[in-house]
Amino acid sequence: MTQTADPRHYDFSDRTRYDALMDVVRTRMTVRAFDPGYVVPREHYEMILEAARHAPSGANAQPWHYVIVTDQELKNRIMEYFREEQVVRAKLKMKFPTPDYGGLATAPGLVVVASDFRWVRAFPVLNDGSALDRMYKKAQQAMKPLLGTPDQLSVLDIMCFGPPAKQPYRRWKKNLDEITNWNRFDASHFMTDAQIDEWVTTTRHKAMYRDAGNVD
Amino acid sequence: MTQTADPRHYDFSDRTRYDALMDVVRTRMTVRAFDPGYVVPREHYEMILEAARHAPSGANAQPWHYVIVTDQELKNRIMEYFREEQVVRAKLKMKFPTPDYGGLATAPGLVVVASDFRWVRAFPVLNDGSALDRMYKKAQQAMKPLLGTPDQLSVLDIMCFGPPAKQPYRRWKKNLDEITNWNRFDASHFMTDAQIDEWVTTTRHKAMYRDAGNVD
Repeated sequence: MTQTADPRHYDFSDRTRYDALMDVVRTRMTVRAFDPGYVVPREHYEMILEAARHAPSGANAQPWHYVIVTDQELKNRIMEYFREEQVVRAKLKMKFPTPDYGGLATAPGLVVVASDFRWVRAFPVLNDGSALDRMYKKAQQAMKPLLGTPDQLSVLDIMCFGPPAKQPYRRWKKNLDEITNWNRFDASHFMTDAQIDEWVTTTRHKAMYRDAGNVD
Repeated sequence: MTQTADPRHYDFSDRTRYDALMDVVRTRMTVRAFDPGYVVPREHYEMILEAARHAPSGANAQPWHYVIVTDQELKNRIMEYFREEQVVRAKLKMKFPTPDYGGLATAPGLVVVASDFRWVRAFPVLNDGSALDRMYKKAQQAMKPLLGTPDQLSVLDIMCFGPPAKQPYRRWKKNLDEITNWNRFDASHFMTDAQIDEWVTTTRHKAMYRDAGNVD
């Protein structure tokens, strides 16, 4: 979007970036069987996580860790776990057209996503069953009559669209090496409860409302 | 990625699509204050949801509905709900640097995301507290010792990477008009429990394992 002199008029004639994004979005395909002989270059995993680390998160807490698994023995053990589960399901005749979990062992690499839910402390959630706690959790119930959504649906998010009233800024993001782990979680990435509480007190307001240069 | 004659060698020299994607990913910014005088063209909402409808989902169930809110009175009522909540939080001195919810009323448009969790029936989850049910839900517990992830982290996903062993295909996706609602949920989009069960029986295997041409 290009903003012209008159703030009421914006030039959207250039769709190049939308079309480039949609070229990726429309052609993404699920793959469950892989060429096991190929060694994915280390740089490619970094390119994947470079995209992942830019995702938005509540209070910009970035509660994610990624474990890249290339060790064959480890891939085999992960695959075996799901294959055993599949055998139990088959015996129960659950009729689910289960994917072939063999891909977990034959894929050159896996990326395991781990999330640290202790970061919920960074949000204004009381988790105490109080009236406010219930109010916060039931916001979606309040939305339903306004929007006419049936009780069976859950309102998950409200996103706002329009030209910004003031210059937006890019939020601070964790560095790639803080969220990347090879074959095993790097214990140096672990934060204690006290460290998370300290972050909420001293860093959260900067991470939420200032650009990257004001945090690092 | 371009596949060459020898399947062990792939040409990754062209990073055009990655760079185009990252141009969007890196420059995405959160905006909470909008130019209220701008009317977002209807086509732009459709472009946004055109991207959203291509997202992957468990069993390709696509359990999402989107309500585009442009009605000023409705935007005001949604904003008022969150502003009231904010007042209660402020009185409780929760010290959360709350965003300005005024953007909900001044944004030219909102997109509300609603999800239908009844689609969990499309997955092999027993939800009966049985041994298998617990096994399925505790898969992440089984992964923790393998990956060395601390108890405080939750393993959410395992993604496989590598060149496909056979030609992948694009899954069927719902049409844009099936998931788009203007200012109020369109009751014709609602599926009964019986219709969902019927879909699981007659369509799930096609939606999961065949390309778009084999479902519609």
